[in-house]
Amino acid sequence: MSGDPEKSEQPERAAVHGLSADFVAGLVEWLTIPSIGNDPARLGDVARSATWLADALRRDGWPDVRVWDEGPALPAVYASWPSADPSAPTVLVYGHHDVQPVDPVEEWTRPPFEPVVEGDELFGRGASDDKGQVAMHLLGVRAHLAATGGSAPAVNLKLFVEGEEEIGSPHLPELLDAHRADLASDLVVFSDTPVYARDAPTVCTGQRGVYGAEVVFVGGSSDVHSGRAGGGVPNPVTALARLVAALHDERGAVALPGFYDDVVPPTDAERADYASLPFDEDAWLANSGGARVAAGEEGWSTLERVWVRPSAEVNGFVGGYTGPGLKTIVPARAEVKLSFRLAPGQRPERVAEALRVFVAEHTPPGIRSEVIPRGDGVPPYAVDINHPAVVALREVVEAALEQPVRFARSGGSGPAAVLHQSLGVPVVYLGVTLPDDRVHAPNERVVVSQLLRGAEAAARLWRVLPERLT
Amino acid sequence: MSGDPEKSEQPERAAVHGLSADFVAGLVEWLTIPSIGNDPARLGDVARSATWLADALRRDGWPDVRVWDEGPALPAVYASWPSADPSAPTVLVYGHHDVQPVDPVEEWTRPPFEPVVEGDELFGRGASDDKGQVAMHLLGVRAHLAATGGSAPAVNLKLFVEGEEEIGSPHLPELLDAHRADLASDLVVFSDTPVYARDAPTVCTGQRGVYGAEVVFVGGSSDVHSGRAGGGVPNPVTALARLVAALHDERGAVALPGFYDDVVPPTDAERADYASLPFDEDAWLANSGGARVAAGEEGWSTLERVWVRPSAEVNGFVGGYTGPGLKTIVPARAEVKLSFRLAPGQRPERVAEALRVFVAEHTPPGIRSEVIPRGDGVPPYAVDINHPAVVALREVVEAALEQPVRFARSGGSGPAAVLHQSLGVPVVYLGVTLPDDRVHAPNERVVVSQLLRGAEAAARLWRVLPERLT
Repeated sequence: MSGDPEKSEQPERAAVHGLSADFVAGLVEWLTIPSIGNDPARLGDVARSATWLADALRRDGWPDVRVWDEGPALPAVYASWPSADPSAPTVLVYGHHDVQPVDPVEEWTRPPFEPVVEGDELFGRGASDDKGQVAMHLLGVRAHLAATGGSAPAVNLKLFVEGEEEIGSPHLPELLDAHRADLASDLVVFSDTPVYARDAPTVCTGQRGVYGAEVVFVGGSSDVHSGRAGGGVPNPVTALARLVAALHDERGAVALPGFYDDVVPPTDAERADYASLPFDEDAWLANSGGARVAAGEEGWSTLERVWVRPSAEVNGFVGGYTGPGLKTIVPARAEVKLSFRLAPGQRPERVAEALRVFVAEHTPPGIRSEVIPRGDGVPPYAVDINHPAVVALREVVEAALEQPVRFARSGGSGPAAVLHQSLGVPVVYLGVTLPDDRVHAPNERVVVSQLLRGAEAAARLWRVLPERLT
Repeated sequence: MSGDPEKSEQPERAAVHGLSADFVAGLVEWLTIPSIGNDPARLGDVARSATWLADALRRDGWPDVRVWDEGPALPAVYASWPSADPSAPTVLVYGHHDVQPVDPVEEWTRPPFEPVVEGDELFGRGASDDKGQVAMHLLGVRAHLAATGGSAPAVNLKLFVEGEEEIGSPHLPELLDAHRADLASDLVVFSDTPVYARDAPTVCTGQRGVYGAEVVFVGGSSDVHSGRAGGGVPNPVTALARLVAALHDERGAVALPGFYDDVVPPTDAERADYASLPFDEDAWLANSGGARVAAGEEGWSTLERVWVRPSAEVNGFVGGYTGPGLKTIVPARAEVKLSFRLAPGQRPERVAEALRVFVAEHTPPGIRSEVIPRGDGVPPYAVDINHPAVVALREVVEAALEQPVRFARSGGSGPAAVLHQSLGVPVVYLGVTLPDDRVHAPNERVVVSQLLRGAEAAARLWRVLPERLT
């Protein structure tokens, strides 16, 4: 399928090729703005980043561009470009323009906000996550128009680029609610995920949800010397350790009552895709905090465990004396932070209720327990792989990357499910960045050619979607 | 048995009575010296306190008085007073002159080092623990000499008052070793324990030992985001919680292999004494950190659980993220601080070995575990209640307090066992302070009349011991 990019069967590729230098120059400029959403000193930069994007969209000809900066959400950018055909489907593209902090900054070999292109790599904070994939869409629309020769896209396009994804999108539901009419669409194209591997590209079809809570166990009103009472009173640290120990059964499954009742497993076709992906366990472990072995629920592969199966994790445990040396006390208090990754079908509120029941059942006499929910959680999400938009998406990505594309999932949690829940339409994932782009870490980079192929895929998608969605 | 203290059947009481004003004045002076051993700024005061005591002993006529301040132990005081009868038994009296810190100082209603007498109470840091009971012995010797009319005691008396008990007597074994010849004796009288209650006085016959260690579990080399690996790698916090959960069996007994093999239980007579003591569970719980219920090993009363049964406690647990809010990670590391109170017969080094085995057995695949011993531990100690010195001790305390005296134990750990181990002679406990003296807490006090009765008991003991120990 490779060959002369100028040939007429690949008009999107030719258009992308012609616009690539301008694309890189624009992205480099955008990446100089340190739009770190969790840093109060950088809030002006988040606003500058939104303004930069709005200006770029206007330059590209988007007829309606707005910066939503009325608060409390950090500034988001909205733009729309109606199709010449009013009956065409409406597609909302999602991305974000805020970036992760840069600590430890001393580990960057190039300053994080002085982007540099070296060969096919562009280094800088946000290059991959997620300014690169937003800029990819701007390029995709330009290429789509160039390839089709139209003055408006074949679909009604909307773009929504939020400014606080890296701090957990805390105001996303409010923002979606406040702009419901603007955001109304038939489909969301979500662009904030990578492919599985450069030589094993994938289309993501869903993400796990998450629910988190703290559990506090209190025994006495103060610590007591173990010479006085050791062996004679309940120890809340021991009691809470027993609760944590009971959180998984001997098969590695989560032991909350009814935890798996609502889980919708992946289809056989999806499992077959996951199984056919190249999996280097050593490399996976090295990229998973340097874990020594894979472990988890019996009956599922590692990828399935982290993509499609729910999990329970203790994120932190503290109780009693934790300073240097020993202090022979029976502690008064212990606390754990728990979080549950949720599989499609599960609902955070049902898991919250199951946790309350579980904690009550595991609170021994003499201990007062409290469950403190940390937010409402994020629901899981998965799209039907036979949905015509998914089928089309896979085809355009295969064409752009000139490789077979398999289905995959993401084990993380994000705004895709919130968008689905709020807007009531399917969400599909168009992401072409690479798993070794070092997102959230020092020396983040993006591979420029991946973004160009992604822009080509997007341009193709806008061309083919009208016939696929009717 | 009450009546005229001057009557000739109670010469010790009469002598104590005559010396009591001088005794209180001296103790008040000593208590003004803030001999806090764990405060580097107070080390000069610890030395001043030792000098004060040495001067007081010389004023009392002790012929050989020395301050052992050659380091590394904080200054200790040694004194000896040979009997006129060279064949008399040699008794070593133990106490300490360092005191606990005074934090939180704002909770003291009178400044901790400006001692005040109010009625029968003397307030000040160290009044009860342990300057009061050391001063009691000085008074006891003076009363003994006055009562017997001799110029030397009926037993060969030695006094050893250390200066770092409140920081765990870290150099006691070295100090005992360096002065083995001076300290050689037939019996140790240990004076640093309270009675069970003012109206239920007791003679202590032993203390639990203690062994402590930290256990560290390491999974990966760094925390990893649970969206990436949650459910797919071992969680060291979960694994360590399981170890803690396995530390006790369903009967509340400690599950280390062979943990109970060496335990020497108390005699039926001792258990009967414990059972006959008035026990107010609500008051005990209130004084045990405000615990809500008593709990522990099945088959033993609360007093037995904390006095004569060994125990295992988690003193602290920390792992993963413990700051505000949630952080959805699989932590890389978890750590617990464990300590074991040991019953007579148990040896710290055997418990240390059992812990190593237990940790190895409870380290799952993918976790690297480490056991970090915190010192060699303190052995437990118990004296035979039929030993003639114990029998004599109980009699003189009964006579002085004019109440029946039962046997008790202490659940804490201290230098008594170290003295026993080093000197190879029995240790008996002469202590008359009260459990509500607020030792180690703000507003420490001592009840003066208890010290006067204790001095009387000591004076009687020196008179009767020669015939009892032959």
